Amino acid sequence: MQMQLLQDRIRKDGQIKEGNILKVDSFLNHQIDVSLLQEIGKELKRQFEGKEITKILTIEASGIAIACIAAQYFGCPVIFAKKTKTLNIAGEVYTAKVESFTHQTTNDIIVSKSFLHAEDKVLIIDDFLANGKAIFGLSELVRQAGAELVGAGVVIEKGFQEGGKRLREMGIDLHSLAIVESMDPATGSITFRKED
Amino acid sequence: MQMQLLQDRIRKDGQIKEGNILKVDSFLNHQIDVSLLQEIGKELKRQFEGKEITKILTIEASGIAIACIAAQYFGCPVIFAKKTKTLNIAGEVYTAKVESFTHQTTNDIIVSKSFLHAEDKVLIIDDFLANGKAIFGLSELVRQAGAELVGAGVVIEKGFQEGGKRLREMGIDLHSLAIVESMDPATGSITFRKED
Repeated sequence: MQMQLLQDRIRKDGQIKEGNILKVDSFLNHQIDVSLLQEIGKELKRQFEGKEITKILTIEASGIAIACIAAQYFGCPVIFAKKTKTLNIAGEVYTAKVESFTHQTTNDIIVSKSFLHAEDKVLIIDDFLANGKAIFGLSELVRQAGAELVGAGVVIEKGFQEGGKRLREMGIDLHSLAIVESMDPATGSITFRKED
Repeated sequence: MQMQLLQDRIRKDGQIKEGNILKVDSFLNHQIDVSLLQEIGKELKRQFEGKEITKILTIEASGIAIACIAAQYFGCPVIFAKKTKTLNIAGEVYTAKVESFTHQTTNDIIVSKSFLHAEDKVLIIDDFLANGKAIFGLSELVRQAGAELVGAGVVIEKGFQEGGKRLREMGIDLHSLAIVESMDPATGSITFRKED
């Protein structure tokens, strides 16, 4: 289920740029409105109500803020996957490759094996979902650990890209708080997905 | 003033490595104990009680978690400076150079001019203080904006390195919640600074 407060904020303060870029750096990923993040955290808790979650997994850098504020409502620790360009010692970390839509680069992401275990029930949280590569990479770390992936919570999904569809087809219980169906840099208008 | 709960946690879960490395990635900067961060946030609020603060400034990635949790007690937004290796368009960002002690690299750090203004009263928050370069770089961004630097709050200061001394001599109101005076990788023992 989407979140009206968040959609309103995106309409008010989001900036639409050529190339399907939605800039929300005034409240989400450069300057951070912590009170909005609290509402996002509460909403994610509502949407995964009744599910047992032992770890929240995110990816540096901009996922950290959302994951940490949300974790307060779930009462569990956060792990953030680190991006690295250096080859890591096999055996000590779980690792996956992630292509970045924004930066047009590929990073290895890693999580220390010390912090993700077979008995963990993991919720993935991230700020943006576009091509789904980050969440797919994070889900791959969960799979390597033998842990259970409970679901994924995303603040803004670009519904006109394929990531959300692919992740849902994989069977991931994906909840996006705002799903952008289309946006127009010329007029600044933005349309969110209508829900059934 | 230092924080007993934090010192106890560092003694219990910190790992001392050769080369003056203190690994706290089980609770502070890879896996994050959000309930500990809440206590850290409350303690920082106590230590800067009565000071007007309009923005908390930190640096990606591991500063973000602490800054966001703490910001809830200060009731102000967070800005995180981004590390970049690309030259940025002059005029749009404040920028400074920061050498990393851990990674032996130099990054440009940037903050958009949209988010830091002359009327801001800024508290810098970071996880570690060693040579002080990160906090010095952040204070340089505050200076460029013409804003007021109220002070800096640090979780762990390596008291045997020069950063804390230098920043205090510059007149920065620096509060470190744990100041490590010495640590021994052979025995795993750690000594915190005694306070007057």
